[in-house]
Amino acid sequence: MIETLRQAAVALTLAAPLLNVPAAAGEAGAPPMLGFSSTAAAAEREREARLDAALDPAEMRAWLERLAARPHHVGSQWGRANAEWLRERFASWGYEARIETFQVLFPTPVERALEMLAPTRFRARLEEPALAADSTSGQKREQLPPYNAYSIDGDVTGELVYVNHGLPADYEELARRGIDVRGRIVLARYGGSWRGIKPKVAAEKGAIGCLIYSDPRGDGYFEGDVYPEGGYRSRDSVQRGSVADMPIHSGDPLTPGVGATPEAERLPLDEVPVLTRIPVLPISYGDAQPLLAALGGPVAPETWRGALPLTYHLGPGPARVHLRVRFDWSLAPVHDVIAVLPGATAPDEWVLRGNHHDAWVNGATDPVSGLVALLAEAEAVGELARAGWRPARTLVYAAWDGEEAGLLGSTEWAEAHAEELRAKAVAYLNTDSVTRGFLGLDGSHSLERFANEVAREVADPQTSVPVLERARAARIVGAADDEARRRLREEPDLRLGALGSGSDFTPFLQHLGVAALNFGFGGEEQYGQYHSIYDSIDHYLRFGDPRLDYVAAAARTGARLTLRLAEAEVLPLTLERAAAAIGEYVGEIEKLTGTMRRESEERARLLADHTLELAADPTRTFVPPPALDRVPFLELAPIQNAASALAAAAVRFETARAAAVERGLEGATRAELNAFLRGFERRLLLDSGLPGRPWYRHQIYAPGQYTGYGVKTLPAIREAIEFRRWDEANAQVVVVARLLDDARAAIEAMTAKLGG
Amino acid sequence: MIETLRQAAVALTLAAPLLNVPAAAGEAGAPPMLGFSSTAAAAEREREARLDAALDPAEMRAWLERLAARPHHVGSQWGRANAEWLRERFASWGYEARIETFQVLFPTPVERALEMLAPTRFRARLEEPALAADSTSGQKREQLPPYNAYSIDGDVTGELVYVNHGLPADYEELARRGIDVRGRIVLARYGGSWRGIKPKVAAEKGAIGCLIYSDPRGDGYFEGDVYPEGGYRSRDSVQRGSVADMPIHSGDPLTPGVGATPEAERLPLDEVPVLTRIPVLPISYGDAQPLLAALGGPVAPETWRGALPLTYHLGPGPARVHLRVRFDWSLAPVHDVIAVLPGATAPDEWVLRGNHHDAWVNGATDPVSGLVALLAEAEAVGELARAGWRPARTLVYAAWDGEEAGLLGSTEWAEAHAEELRAKAVAYLNTDSVTRGFLGLDGSHSLERFANEVAREVADPQTSVPVLERARAARIVGAADDEARRRLREEPDLRLGALGSGSDFTPFLQHLGVAALNFGFGGEEQYGQYHSIYDSIDHYLRFGDPRLDYVAAAARTGARLTLRLAEAEVLPLTLERAAAAIGEYVGEIEKLTGTMRRESEERARLLADHTLELAADPTRTFVPPPALDRVPFLELAPIQNAASALAAAAVRFETARAAAVERGLEGATRAELNAFLRGFERRLLLDSGLPGRPWYRHQIYAPGQYTGYGVKTLPAIREAIEFRRWDEANAQVVVVARLLDDARAAIEAMTAKLGG
Repeated sequence: MIETLRQAAVALTLAAPLLNVPAAAGEAGAPPMLGFSSTAAAAEREREARLDAALDPAEMRAWLERLAARPHHVGSQWGRANAEWLRERFASWGYEARIETFQVLFPTPVERALEMLAPTRFRARLEEPALAADSTSGQKREQLPPYNAYSIDGDVTGELVYVNHGLPADYEELARRGIDVRGRIVLARYGGSWRGIKPKVAAEKGAIGCLIYSDPRGDGYFEGDVYPEGGYRSRDSVQRGSVADMPIHSGDPLTPGVGATPEAERLPLDEVPVLTRIPVLPISYGDAQPLLAALGGPVAPETWRGALPLTYHLGPGPARVHLRVRFDWSLAPVHDVIAVLPGATAPDEWVLRGNHHDAWVNGATDPVSGLVALLAEAEAVGELARAGWRPARTLVYAAWDGEEAGLLGSTEWAEAHAEELRAKAVAYLNTDSVTRGFLGLDGSHSLERFANEVAREVADPQTSVPVLERARAARIVGAADDEARRRLREEPDLRLGALGSGSDFTPFLQHLGVAALNFGFGGEEQYGQYHSIYDSIDHYLRFGDPRLDYVAAAARTGARLTLRLAEAEVLPLTLERAAAAIGEYVGEIEKLTGTMRRESEERARLLADHTLELAADPTRTFVPPPALDRVPFLELAPIQNAASALAAAAVRFETARAAAVERGLEGATRAELNAFLRGFERRLLLDSGLPGRPWYRHQIYAPGQYTGYGVKTLPAIREAIEFRRWDEANAQVVVVARLLDDARAAIEAMTAKLGG
Repeated sequence: MIETLRQAAVALTLAAPLLNVPAAAGEAGAPPMLGFSSTAAAAEREREARLDAALDPAEMRAWLERLAARPHHVGSQWGRANAEWLRERFASWGYEARIETFQVLFPTPVERALEMLAPTRFRARLEEPALAADSTSGQKREQLPPYNAYSIDGDVTGELVYVNHGLPADYEELARRGIDVRGRIVLARYGGSWRGIKPKVAAEKGAIGCLIYSDPRGDGYFEGDVYPEGGYRSRDSVQRGSVADMPIHSGDPLTPGVGATPEAERLPLDEVPVLTRIPVLPISYGDAQPLLAALGGPVAPETWRGALPLTYHLGPGPARVHLRVRFDWSLAPVHDVIAVLPGATAPDEWVLRGNHHDAWVNGATDPVSGLVALLAEAEAVGELARAGWRPARTLVYAAWDGEEAGLLGSTEWAEAHAEELRAKAVAYLNTDSVTRGFLGLDGSHSLERFANEVAREVADPQTSVPVLERARAARIVGAADDEARRRLREEPDLRLGALGSGSDFTPFLQHLGVAALNFGFGGEEQYGQYHSIYDSIDHYLRFGDPRLDYVAAAARTGARLTLRLAEAEVLPLTLERAAAAIGEYVGEIEKLTGTMRRESEERARLLADHTLELAADPTRTFVPPPALDRVPFLELAPIQNAASALAAAAVRFETARAAAVERGLEGATRAELNAFLRGFERRLLLDSGLPGRPWYRHQIYAPGQYTGYGVKTLPAIREAIEFRRWDEANAQVVVVARLLDDARAAIEAMTAKLGG
């Protein structure tokens, strides 16, 4: 292995000049730095070099081993102890550190039972055994058993139906075969979307219970050797996780929109909109196999079949199961650790950097790996501060509690501090798991150029080229077509993915309009033990990032992002790509209607000429799909014009800004410019929120109502179209176009002030 | 089931007028019939109606049960008995029936042993157990055990490597991971190409032995319930089959190009080019599973992984296996049954119709289902003859022996009768397996319009629409894109697939230039027991075509094809689509060079900028692929011009033919026209054959040297390009262009005689 590594390093050192990319940090001929004069940039790079030197791998490993030593879910003793320990660390490094505690609804299991009653009897194990090769797996007394948080209590018996990923399109396939889940219990496999969508759709379709299992096709032996031989999911391992309806809102189910302080008004349990409608339980493939093997009915479509050694049938029945779950619905405390380093010249401008500290069990990968990177960064920044330096703006480091259950800690804190954040927040920088591999970057497009600049200056631990170039290489190799490859090669910057949900950026970005970036490393780990007791120290040090090289790389990346945002004379948020991305989303919307229109027409043809019936096997049930209503041409002109004008205004703004910076900005103008940039993301919010889910206010980025983590850009318009609500789509076009027009007017006003 | 069927029938009866297709046979307002005057067409349709009425399902079932009653491979007692029985049937129906026997090399196993020596010991079972639910599976004494015919003898020991399908591209993937098969034994799974390609490529790459197994992903439990619960391949079931290098030539390995008569000169065994270079053995997934589970090394690429419950590793080793196979290399007799009904007016024009009668074991599906259709057709035709009618041209029905081992019976017969066939053959119509489902049509494009005409007049047994329309519906539903769907809807005819190899049409079409059609039904069967002892009567009657409805449909289709070819005043071969198809293949050749050129350029870019190394995991071996030589622009103009002129000439010819027929053809011109049409396919042959394989003479259709069954159109040019032999490609363009020019000149001469 080492030999191979050395060879690669030699090859890549040779390759670097050919790549024609800026040298990684530390080399001569420094490139310009966004928002910094060349003098200031030199000072900043000097600080970053000291910061890199301060990182201590042995200490990082010790922290990982401490934080993941015991189970530390919401309300646990070790979670509380970790919070205290974290606060002390921050305090010892010179931060104003405190714990902010909220009281949230956090159900834990009292009873979990699953048995098959017919055609044979089988009782599901529902337990993950301790492994000799995994030193923390035996901490049974402290572990939360496998369950899905925010499932309702339930005791149901019914025939089983296999529903693939349990998404709306899967139920279409079942309907084609005459299969209805009403009054039945569905068995869905993990994957295809966020888990919370599965019971939501199942309940909408009339199911009375929902089982979710980890097929070995997803993260088990199909992908690689299972733990402890390899890192992938073993037979009895179960993925825990929240199934609250997070696309409605994140955070405490009882206190939407406000911090879950002791005095906050709380919804009665029976009025909580985000709980599931039916009982849900996650199971292992060891427990799922007898159930699947007992199903009759049609053979599942090819893409539905997993890697178990059996023929996947759909049912319904003859498998008949009894599911019983009951929870303790108490409140529990979440302990957010907040560490502040006040800014010297702009204390009311906050740069926020966060990672959660709670885990489903020991969580060495999720979240401790990312948290350790944040700590290493914070300690190194603290050292700079102890040597007398102060950031211009205020740094706020946060270790969130309760992320796993639904972004509880971050959401409650953001809601509790909403006014202050609206006024002061510059950006929120998030990490979560970090493992060996490639840089991942998603976020507000106003941060795209900045994030690329930083990624160009951090060296990849294994190959020594910039992490940006390694990420680019992976994207080129995985590109869908020539056009995508060409763009990846020719555009200097990698595009950011748009943010949906799944980690703590959501309340900042989508509820409050704080520009957000989510970054991390991964892709070369063997990570098949997500949310099980085997996401452990032993697992991470063998299969995650054995030398914590990428934890260190994440610290170097995070430190640059944080410090540069804190120190920049002019904030490094840029509007050109932000506006261009909106224009591209408008283009996608138009294309989507075209695709849906052709699909409706094709459906009509297939129905009219009976092609589907003729192609179907007459000995099997086949129910033709319903006709689709005609897709009208939408009145997109307002948003097309708005996006086009916004893009042009953004270009003029950036030209004017560059000229003004070149000329030299006087203090008041600079302050006004920074305030404008800080507040720009807020201009993309509507106070009324998205249709049907007012908590989500961002009009460009939101998690999809049927994707969960997956983003829907221009969500109000896009989802109206996807749900075939044509009038609503047209109405939302007008609403969002007006918002974009307002944003453009603000840009133009600022441009004028800059003399553009 | 019956209810569903009835509903479908009602729906489709209602649908028929909407479909706007000609009514199925027997209804009023008869459409024109290619090559027939309207009077003659009416008489022909009347014959066909009598023929349909003569089909007797009970008799067909009795024949199936008789022919598949015992194992009947080459040289077996039951094979001999079946041949006698077939001859007697034909004779009893008024045919001049005889058995023609050839002596061919037919190795049978003397010793088969496979054991794993490390890391654990395991001895492969290599046997298929009898099943209570399958009444013929216990005929152990008469069954050939699982083996691959024309594997050489061998006794080898070596480390195992998993090679996916064992095709050249698979070895590229292994090379990227630094894995070499030299001195090792490869384990390939069935699928991806004809089985004979696997040991051929393995030997080229330096392997010393080859195992081929049936992964349950291919035809086992992944696809459906296994036998006897369902029809798919069970754990111990093995696919037998020939692994001779058939792309060099088909037929007896000792007598290429000549009939294997007693006096024929025979190659010594050590000079036979079509034997494998390494020992080969097919195994079940029951036997393969311990071997695969014992492999170490890298995890196989995702598309290589099958459905066994394990992580697919590539090796090499630590699994180490010992393979020992020894065969009896005796000659064996193949007994072709030939039944002739001499033509009344044109006895020297032969319409040939064949299906093989040998099987690997009982072969109820393969070949008995297709053979029964041929018999039913022949009996019904015989009844017409006994009632005093005689076909204008001579009908030759053939039941071939030795197809499974390499088209032995058909090839030897075609070689032995080559001169006569060149002079007399009109067309060869082939069937093989027939099961429930959709019409399949492949063949010479001069038969495309004719085959469509017939398919329009045969009713589908389950839906009552024409079999053509049901096939069209299946193709529309499976179409790759909008353009393919549009063409399927708008063009009245379905296009024929081009013929590669895999059944008895090969010697006729590709060695002798007899226009050929291969047809059958299938797609709704559960056929996972191909070439095992479980391809049995019990299996077929449950999972193949329980009521033999599609056997009857095949008989109706075959009877129309045969009779119309025998009776047509002008032969129903047409040249317009034949020429157009050649033009399309020329277009594909040009596109192929463009694709390869872009691929070479892309490869060069990836290598120059080290993208592949940067995207690779440095802890794993990664060997960059070699640079590809530049793809020159080929000198395609000669064949582009030739194909274009040929297409134009074919259009003028068809116009002139239609006008001449309309005017009324005098006898001599008609005879000349028919002779011209009969001989047209021969004009696409070159006496010198294809480069490196002179037995294959057809310049438009050939099995690929690395596909086996899969066709390569314009093979001399296309394979030169695929093998990156640019000079040879340019040279072959000139050769084939000249052939097409000659064919065009002949068409033009005939057109002139027709007054066009």
